[in-house]
Amino acid sequence: MPEAPASPRPASRARSRAPLGLRQPPWWKSYRRGHFVADLLAGLVVAALLVPQAMAYAMLAGLPAQAGLVSCLAPLVVYALLGTSRTLSVGPVAIVSLLVADGLAMLGPLSTERALAAAALLALEMGLLQLAMGLLRAGFLVNFLSHPVVLGYTSAAALVIAFSQAKHLLGLAFPRDVLPWETLVSLATHVGETKAIALLVGGGAIALLALFPRVMKKLLARAGSPRWLRALAPRCAPLLVVVGGTALAYAFGLHASAGLAVVGEVPPALPSFELPAIDLELLRALLPAAAAIACLGFLESYSVAQTLASRRREHVHPSRELVALGCANLASACTGGFPVSGGVSRSMANAGAGARSQVASLATALFVLLTVLALTPLLRHLPRAILAAIIVMAVAPLLDLGAARRIWKYSKADGWALIATFVGVFALGVGSGIAVGVLLSLSIYLARSARPHIAVVGRVGDSESYRNVKRYQVHVDPRVLAIRIDENLMFSNVRYLEQRIPQLVAQKPGLKHVLLIASGINLIDASGLRFLELVSEMLASGKVELHLAEVKGPVMDKLERADFPARLGRDHFHLSTHEAMERLAPSESSG
Amino acid sequence: MPEAPASPRPASRARSRAPLGLRQPPWWKSYRRGHFVADLLAGLVVAALLVPQAMAYAMLAGLPAQAGLVSCLAPLVVYALLGTSRTLSVGPVAIVSLLVADGLAMLGPLSTERALAAAALLALEMGLLQLAMGLLRAGFLVNFLSHPVVLGYTSAAALVIAFSQAKHLLGLAFPRDVLPWETLVSLATHVGETKAIALLVGGGAIALLALFPRVMKKLLARAGSPRWLRALAPRCAPLLVVVGGTALAYAFGLHASAGLAVVGEVPPALPSFELPAIDLELLRALLPAAAAIACLGFLESYSVAQTLASRRREHVHPSRELVALGCANLASACTGGFPVSGGVSRSMANAGAGARSQVASLATALFVLLTVLALTPLLRHLPRAILAAIIVMAVAPLLDLGAARRIWKYSKADGWALIATFVGVFALGVGSGIAVGVLLSLSIYLARSARPHIAVVGRVGDSESYRNVKRYQVHVDPRVLAIRIDENLMFSNVRYLEQRIPQLVAQKPGLKHVLLIASGINLIDASGLRFLELVSEMLASGKVELHLAEVKGPVMDKLERADFPARLGRDHFHLSTHEAMERLAPSESSG
Repeated sequence: MPEAPASPRPASRARSRAPLGLRQPPWWKSYRRGHFVADLLAGLVVAALLVPQAMAYAMLAGLPAQAGLVSCLAPLVVYALLGTSRTLSVGPVAIVSLLVADGLAMLGPLSTERALAAAALLALEMGLLQLAMGLLRAGFLVNFLSHPVVLGYTSAAALVIAFSQAKHLLGLAFPRDVLPWETLVSLATHVGETKAIALLVGGGAIALLALFPRVMKKLLARAGSPRWLRALAPRCAPLLVVVGGTALAYAFGLHASAGLAVVGEVPPALPSFELPAIDLELLRALLPAAAAIACLGFLESYSVAQTLASRRREHVHPSRELVALGCANLASACTGGFPVSGGVSRSMANAGAGARSQVASLATALFVLLTVLALTPLLRHLPRAILAAIIVMAVAPLLDLGAARRIWKYSKADGWALIATFVGVFALGVGSGIAVGVLLSLSIYLARSARPHIAVVGRVGDSESYRNVKRYQVHVDPRVLAIRIDENLMFSNVRYLEQRIPQLVAQKPGLKHVLLIASGINLIDASGLRFLELVSEMLASGKVELHLAEVKGPVMDKLERADFPARLGRDHFHLSTHEAMERLAPSESSG
Repeated sequence: MPEAPASPRPASRARSRAPLGLRQPPWWKSYRRGHFVADLLAGLVVAALLVPQAMAYAMLAGLPAQAGLVSCLAPLVVYALLGTSRTLSVGPVAIVSLLVADGLAMLGPLSTERALAAAALLALEMGLLQLAMGLLRAGFLVNFLSHPVVLGYTSAAALVIAFSQAKHLLGLAFPRDVLPWETLVSLATHVGETKAIALLVGGGAIALLALFPRVMKKLLARAGSPRWLRALAPRCAPLLVVVGGTALAYAFGLHASAGLAVVGEVPPALPSFELPAIDLELLRALLPAAAAIACLGFLESYSVAQTLASRRREHVHPSRELVALGCANLASACTGGFPVSGGVSRSMANAGAGARSQVASLATALFVLLTVLALTPLLRHLPRAILAAIIVMAVAPLLDLGAARRIWKYSKADGWALIATFVGVFALGVGSGIAVGVLLSLSIYLARSARPHIAVVGRVGDSESYRNVKRYQVHVDPRVLAIRIDENLMFSNVRYLEQRIPQLVAQKPGLKHVLLIASGINLIDASGLRFLELVSEMLASGKVELHLAEVKGPVMDKLERADFPARLGRDHFHLSTHEAMERLAPSESSG
């Protein structure tokens, strides 16, 4: 018994089901005191990571360190209220900050004040874009970014970020370059001016960041420490190097005595609500960067939210995530912050530390706020080399050569897409590099789907089965060419079929009928309809008739709308292949 | 007996077969005297159309009329020697000329001499691009252009061309505008300056062009005229209006007396072989136009060549067509011509007049050459309104509102792609408009393919069949979630599955195993592999195991390359769904 034809609209059905899948009880219905303690601990763990990272990513974006702290507060609260993930932690993230730096670099040299204003405007614009994408359910646009492209750009971005920080680790001073390879050239020309003290402080920080977590884990496990300490302590390394580095620099006056670059004067910056000044010219100039950040930020954030939710059998919803992220960015823009997104490492830490609900994020916001109030005056002594070390260690895991090698081994086509994206990002910048990778992916995809699998079939013995002539011993009637097309008839493949079918026809001189077996066709788009019209016309001019068999119900309905069955002749449509063959080449003469 | 799995490489198999399909005997092997007579007649018919069209399209491109005649000769000969179509007629065509005009407009105002040099360089560049696309077998790139997009841009181009000619039909004089809608504005502001004589001559020509063929056909059929006359005479209308218009203008001195715009001084221009001056700056500026012309010219040319060949059970080969067209354009560039392509109307006329081989094109070239030698001195009196009338009537059939309405009725998604392209071409120019349409098509395609059809299946009675739980009365075991995915696992759809599968899992609290039935999967790309890894990881963290059944041989081979079966566990792969279900949920307890 054959299965009923596939439903015409899996998409709309799936969409109508999506809310059902989301009917998980809201977290506060089952919230207990134990949960609150867990959330407080997770909030503290994330804050310990977030404070140093936020400052570092602000400087990566070309902004003062405190802009990073400001960008944590309102977005954390807004996402906690609107987001569908219980454990996602939003705030400044590395790749978004790199894109912000690229976007601001397009505007030419800016004063700190203008850079801050432009960054807020960028957050406003990308927030509006994410909001619009969410309301229009356009999250599927990130499907353009295949896994190899994502891996290519994240790996390249990690390298680019590392190179951009190398100058701080070496204590060099040269203006920011626009393209990644230019940074390499600048590094090479200035490497002779390396300052030993910066190298020492930065290198020490890197060593501490690399070793501290492992050593702490072992020590605490051996000492049988309580769970909360084992969750918190290994993740305090960034905070420790910040505190330690600042103390060192302050105690020994390293800035004055050895010329160690420090963050410098940091006015205590509490978020203040004010709409960024709207400048249409600036908005237009920032649009490409805003669009790139809206998509890439969402992609990174959604991926980690989904991974974390699935592990706990919870759901995140792409459109609602876009809306929540969009609003978080609007909140950032209106409080003097810059673009934010859900961060991979901090969200993992949040979930790993046992966060149960969005209360953890609210706790994080509270701890960050306390830090801002208490510590800002001390930050002026924080060495930039320390922040550079934190950035480099945070992005290092993104450069995943093993994954790249596995992709290359698995599929050369995917491997080329990865390489093109990687090289593109490095040579042309993140936006153009990704465009190269996406175009190459789509081209490969189209090239592949441009040649659908088609089989000429014949009758198996005296049965009613018709099978591929290349795989089975079958009878073929000289008057009928029966072709099974195992693919939708779409613009991507009709040109191949337009070329292939006449070739097959030309090989059978006594031909009277061509029978297309449509059992594998779920969709015929306008190009496919045009193909059917062209083929029937071509065949007719050579005195050959076109027939179709096993056309699925929904496909037939659509063909009716274009009046095609009436034009071709309704007796040219057959329910089954066997029925068609019996009509077109009666069996007494087919033996 | 189930059919063997689909071949892993339909593409390469089909490619290796393509030359076989092309093993048609070369035309000269069976060439007879009757064929020669037929070819001569067809050559004459095409020449009668080509001479006026070539001049008209040259002026449409913003070049002197004789550049059009020059562009016929060498390309016709080169294509006849290299092309795979026996009846395609190459030369200046309307849409290509429009694109040339757009490309030259980008360079700012040019002297005639510089415009000619730039047009030759453009032909050189697009010729090289077509040659490269042919040698790289990259003809599939035109698959990006779906039928609705093609219809959208040809319809819009027809309107744009008609608007561009309106000023000549009205006898107006204003500089060429860059964007189509600007031309409309200019027309509206200058319409008060309409010259009656231009309107009269142009209107008369249009009436003659519209009526003459029909009247002649009827008259000749009634008179029982010979076949050759019936083929030739109705197609002489453009030639007649050129000769008649020139004679009128000359006899009454309409240029001097009534201010009728004429073509003006035409130096007798025979093709002279010389390489266009290579100017790298100019080449770079012309690159977008060259790329657009290379693709759109090939698309138009190949479509008509294929249609004509199929009617006669002959073949054209896309890559060889690209090479032949590329060489024809190089020949045009080296003889002072501009970009050419295979023309739809002239090729149809060629085939309709009975052309048997490429000799017809050689004959056309000869007749055009004779015309150039004999008539050039007379052309200076040719009214521009006549050429405008010829262009308008030639492009009018491209504005196919009926086809657009049918597409809209057939599929709204395709209809929107058409409308977007049409509006885009009109508002932004041909290149950007097509880009809008292509991006929209691809987005719609991705949005559609982003939600593949998946079915949760259960066992039908005591059989070994497993069917969709929504369509059949089936047994479902609470410990196993069996999902059939009816689509390749690719970057375009894995994100939907990543979201959907956890939703399905969350609905079955007692779940132990998820079984993916891969009978419909012919390809798993790197994103698909990553999806499998993620899902198995997600499920494992919720103590659920991932299993796969009915994985096809070639797909399994590829998974082996990534070591996935070993990592998941080889006992997680099952030959059939039934075997898997027997293992995972033994039937004694499945009730």
